[in-house]
Amino acid sequence: MKAIIPLKRFAFFLGLLALSCNVYADNGYKLWLGYHAVADKKLAAQYVQQLRYLKFTAGSPTLNAAREELLVGLEGMLSLKPQDIEKPNYSTLFVGVSSSLNLPKNTIAQSEIQQTGKEGYLIRSVTINNKKCIVITAQTDIGILHGVFGFLKLLQTQQAIGVLNILEYPRIMYRVLDHWDNLNRTVERGYAGSSIWNWHKLPGYIDQRYIDYARASASVGINGSVVNNVNANALMLTPEYLEKVKALANTFRPYGIKVYLSVKFSSPIDIGGLKTSDPLDPQVIQWWKDKADEIYRGIPDFGGFLVKANSEGQPGPQAYKRSHADGANMLADALAPHNGIVMWRAFVYDNNVPYDRAKQAYNEFKPLDGQFKSNVIVQVKNGPIDFQPREPFHPLFGAMPNTPLMIEFQLTQEYLGFSTNLVYEAPLFKECLESDTYAMGKGSTVANIITGKFNPKLITGMAGVANIGSDVNWCGHPFAQANWYAFGRLAWNPAQSSATIAADWVKMTFTNQPAFVAPMQSIMLQSRENTVNYMTPLGLHHIMGVNTHYGPGPWVDNAGRADWNATYYHKADSAGIGFNRSSTGSNAAAQYQPPVRDMFENLTTCPDEYLLWFHHVRWDHKMRSGKTLWDDMVHHYYMGADSVKQMQRTWDKMAGYVDKEQFQTVKQLMAVQYDEAISWRNSCVLYFQTFANRPIPAGYQMPAHPLSYYRNRKYLQAPGIGGNQ
Amino acid sequence: MKAIIPLKRFAFFLGLLALSCNVYADNGYKLWLGYHAVADKKLAAQYVQQLRYLKFTAGSPTLNAAREELLVGLEGMLSLKPQDIEKPNYSTLFVGVSSSLNLPKNTIAQSEIQQTGKEGYLIRSVTINNKKCIVITAQTDIGILHGVFGFLKLLQTQQAIGVLNILEYPRIMYRVLDHWDNLNRTVERGYAGSSIWNWHKLPGYIDQRYIDYARASASVGINGSVVNNVNANALMLTPEYLEKVKALANTFRPYGIKVYLSVKFSSPIDIGGLKTSDPLDPQVIQWWKDKADEIYRGIPDFGGFLVKANSEGQPGPQAYKRSHADGANMLADALAPHNGIVMWRAFVYDNNVPYDRAKQAYNEFKPLDGQFKSNVIVQVKNGPIDFQPREPFHPLFGAMPNTPLMIEFQLTQEYLGFSTNLVYEAPLFKECLESDTYAMGKGSTVANIITGKFNPKLITGMAGVANIGSDVNWCGHPFAQANWYAFGRLAWNPAQSSATIAADWVKMTFTNQPAFVAPMQSIMLQSRENTVNYMTPLGLHHIMGVNTHYGPGPWVDNAGRADWNATYYHKADSAGIGFNRSSTGSNAAAQYQPPVRDMFENLTTCPDEYLLWFHHVRWDHKMRSGKTLWDDMVHHYYMGADSVKQMQRTWDKMAGYVDKEQFQTVKQLMAVQYDEAISWRNSCVLYFQTFANRPIPAGYQMPAHPLSYYRNRKYLQAPGIGGNQ
Repeated sequence: MKAIIPLKRFAFFLGLLALSCNVYADNGYKLWLGYHAVADKKLAAQYVQQLRYLKFTAGSPTLNAAREELLVGLEGMLSLKPQDIEKPNYSTLFVGVSSSLNLPKNTIAQSEIQQTGKEGYLIRSVTINNKKCIVITAQTDIGILHGVFGFLKLLQTQQAIGVLNILEYPRIMYRVLDHWDNLNRTVERGYAGSSIWNWHKLPGYIDQRYIDYARASASVGINGSVVNNVNANALMLTPEYLEKVKALANTFRPYGIKVYLSVKFSSPIDIGGLKTSDPLDPQVIQWWKDKADEIYRGIPDFGGFLVKANSEGQPGPQAYKRSHADGANMLADALAPHNGIVMWRAFVYDNNVPYDRAKQAYNEFKPLDGQFKSNVIVQVKNGPIDFQPREPFHPLFGAMPNTPLMIEFQLTQEYLGFSTNLVYEAPLFKECLESDTYAMGKGSTVANIITGKFNPKLITGMAGVANIGSDVNWCGHPFAQANWYAFGRLAWNPAQSSATIAADWVKMTFTNQPAFVAPMQSIMLQSRENTVNYMTPLGLHHIMGVNTHYGPGPWVDNAGRADWNATYYHKADSAGIGFNRSSTGSNAAAQYQPPVRDMFENLTTCPDEYLLWFHHVRWDHKMRSGKTLWDDMVHHYYMGADSVKQMQRTWDKMAGYVDKEQFQTVKQLMAVQYDEAISWRNSCVLYFQTFANRPIPAGYQMPAHPLSYYRNRKYLQAPGIGGNQ
Repeated sequence: MKAIIPLKRFAFFLGLLALSCNVYADNGYKLWLGYHAVADKKLAAQYVQQLRYLKFTAGSPTLNAAREELLVGLEGMLSLKPQDIEKPNYSTLFVGVSSSLNLPKNTIAQSEIQQTGKEGYLIRSVTINNKKCIVITAQTDIGILHGVFGFLKLLQTQQAIGVLNILEYPRIMYRVLDHWDNLNRTVERGYAGSSIWNWHKLPGYIDQRYIDYARASASVGINGSVVNNVNANALMLTPEYLEKVKALANTFRPYGIKVYLSVKFSSPIDIGGLKTSDPLDPQVIQWWKDKADEIYRGIPDFGGFLVKANSEGQPGPQAYKRSHADGANMLADALAPHNGIVMWRAFVYDNNVPYDRAKQAYNEFKPLDGQFKSNVIVQVKNGPIDFQPREPFHPLFGAMPNTPLMIEFQLTQEYLGFSTNLVYEAPLFKECLESDTYAMGKGSTVANIITGKFNPKLITGMAGVANIGSDVNWCGHPFAQANWYAFGRLAWNPAQSSATIAADWVKMTFTNQPAFVAPMQSIMLQSRENTVNYMTPLGLHHIMGVNTHYGPGPWVDNAGRADWNATYYHKADSAGIGFNRSSTGSNAAAQYQPPVRDMFENLTTCPDEYLLWFHHVRWDHKMRSGKTLWDDMVHHYYMGADSVKQMQRTWDKMAGYVDKEQFQTVKQLMAVQYDEAISWRNSCVLYFQTFANRPIPAGYQMPAHPLSYYRNRKYLQAPGIGGNQ
């Protein structure tokens, strides 16, 4: 059918078409929810054909949010405003909780819907009235919200939607972001500006950022947010602040995200006027019960407490000769009537304990197995030291079969180059999750343990220390957003692959063009290993600068505590380098099950990547590569730094595929990353050389400066140190 | 001429037209440079007609920036990509420096072009080859940039462009934003997040925000930026930081903005290893010369230094029994070979000096008149205390005829409600600028003095303490952006009116629709007086909370220094209230010229708005209104608070005219402002009532709580206090 349009008007419309929607470039604020127009026009037309009609009765805040998201996504990607209909006489998208959807009988079996649980969803292609329709359904409103995000992801990643049969449900119950945000808006180990929580303006002013934070987190199934630092300020529990927390909880609730608080164990003293915080003291017990009741009056679905106790100076039960279990259980009892949980951190190490720091958490917590109440989950870092670029999995995994264990990953790159280094962390997460502890025989992976496979009665959880701040692009580096994204994806289902998650994120954030997706996915997948190589190869660890943890500091030997010195960890001497954790050393290896222990114990079976974690190795030790240890170490450092240059070359070819501002941002940051990689390489090679007394092999670029240059550099005002005020 | 377009394709285009360009709402990032589509379609068509062809040869960074801005503006507002042409056979927009424009002889007289000076521009409608053309010209590249912004403003405010004859040039030489930003990214008296300067990532990473900051500032003719706090950190002058400053200078340069630094007077000791910072010491003199040379090697057009000395604990020349002039001149000599200037602040007051704080700066600086080098400008706050909601003009204006004086306004709302209170400050600025000092007879306004009318040999300047931070909307409150805008406009030409500037800003930021512009302009123009009324009416001043300066604190009497106590300033007692600055009191009034002095001195001629600034007045004094002082004060407090409610009612009617997110943001903040206004009203009325011993008159809503409630409130973690670290 032809219509006659005057040329002038047509030209006018064409002119409007030329309208660049963003006269400002892409500043990264929209994360992976930019809902860019679907570039494949043929596919876009197919999508429009299928999605022109919508039956989606909203009503609750969650359903309203889901519907709003769906409409925003369809408008952005397809310029489509679907028509609401009642009767499905056309190809229709049905969205609704199963009990309210009124589909023809047997369209979807009840047994299938039940598999979605409380947060999952089904997306199914069905035929109704001879029309091909799509159904997004779930048992709860929040399942619908997750389903809408899951459906939008199909469009964002240009998937076919003709024959859909998707069942999704989370494998882990508590999927929580931990914000190390202080009340004065500094963020401990935060490299993306200041805290996004504007406490001064709460409760009256709800910043749009809180809503977009909730949207982004819900889009990957995150369902909890601890809004304050584990080095907690007791003021957080005062009525004034609880009003502000309540405002945040109200903002998150439609998105299925519960609010949690880090609590200071000495709060009964600090703000309660008590003389003790002994967890067995009746007044203390009552104080916490009353405080919990107070919180739940304002926030009926408050999540619970996160506790750092008797660690790095934080108060705890041990001052009263009580155990971690005593402390945790007291809090658990206060929260249990309200269905709250306690996440009790196992990150403990004592400078005065005269043995290997890597052994201490295990020694302190394993004996407590089975002593925790059922609503306590012990939160364990992925490795036994502290979020190093590579650590073996924490020996507590598999060692506490009767206790819920929650794994804690660090999204913020405290030891991985802050927000100037592109490091996609999913491979690090997966490396830990897929590690076989052998605790219940082969297949006792960390993932299987923390998803409760071996003890289905236990609650399950995964925590990520957030990398989110006030920077317009939220995370400081555009690619750091991928770690927030990947954490959510893996908390929902730890079996997903790093590669798939990376590809999804790249497509949703930038473009689906294979000429961009493939190389960037490749860069992302390799990035963690690259950084390990130029910072801490072959099992080295904890050799960064003091305090700020910025930059190389392998020479640090005066940090005030032995176990804060780099020298404690690498133990370089004229004979060799590395920490002997075998049976001839600290025997930390023996904290693992025999198959794992033996692998680490034996120099010939210990993987290269853990070599210097478990062994003090001679400089002339012959590595699998055929090189001596010294030569191999140097090679890793140089290869790691060089990989950044290759990454830069790849990125330079990507200019045509991404927004100009984003291109420049990443380009500049990569240049900074390269300088930092060179700095790490040169500092470590030159310093360790003073022990190895061997030359840098021919063919490697000599460092531009002597060791003294690197040792004397001061990095002033590096971010991430904010006193808890 | 008709063209035949298939309906389906037409529908497709229409669908694309339906594309909402911003699937995310307006978050305020674009300031007044959003370049929204011109809503008046007829006018838009006229614009397109006139601007379809462009002759604009760029080339230099500044001209490139100007051209880019022009194209972005035309695309955003008109969906127009003008065609570049060489020969003007059509209606053409010509843009270029006069020497390169090659217009037909006598198109524009050289004498007219010369009036534009170094930063100004001409926009002229001309006829060339019988075609109506527009010319934007200037003598310099930066003049062209200013001209482009000036031209775009015409379109943004939907002005006719048929008969243009605009000549613009700045009346003040140095138009500078002072950022009280610390190196640790806190902002002293900052309420918009943290510092936008990411020192850790400089020099390698230039955040797009720096560029957009420069664009916005250049759009109102700001030409200088002091990037660090006047409570300066000496590290700012170390080589490592100078590299970072250089990167900022390079970023600002195309936009005609010079970088300046606040310097700590003791830097020779702090970072220079010297034992003294005596400005007459040869080593000190040499150190500063060398430091200046070092700075200028990296930044050839570095602006100069801003100095806070011997004020609030900052070091200065007085430790060595030297004068402000000694200190300033020593620095001036170091900068003079490089054409740099010294901005030396006159904000001095000494707790140990036993008389009225309001008199001290005058007493300390007036004797130094004529002693400063020609490249020193003494920077004087608008009033003699410290940026109170209302102050009389600073008595130094007019008192130092032989010295350059630079007026310092405060854009950040330290005493005007932080970023929760809508306060348009242009009326405050104008009130000061239009004050007649009578120093050289009638017409010796502050504006005339600081524009150098009475002594054209003096350099001239205006400074604004910035309200800019890392918040996505830059200033914390959407309407606070108007103060950044207004400051630039008034620094360029102090004669412009608050009303015109407000209307321009509203149109450029939101919409041209009169049903929005008129009420919002009205709200803005009234907002400062409203806030004066609910905080400090009738000449009251300095009665806010301690330290953070947040909230009411009329009872503060233990601040550690007498002149930091509220009681020092209001002196309320059973007889009356107010600070006697007449000849029977501190006689601060006598620091003004006789006509001004006499006006303030006499109770019958002293304007109500300065009454309690200059007089201790009896509670039963009969005011011009016929009410007693007490009743009149109460009336002002209640009227002020009520005005916020009226403002809310007006805003609620504006929902249809603005973006949803912006509407909600302002609505929420107004609700917070209302609570704060009530808090101020009740606190002050109840507290002063304890002295007045009179009832709140009938008809006024009784405060909801007793005085003790307000006195006991603690505002924890209010922003703006960041240790200079």
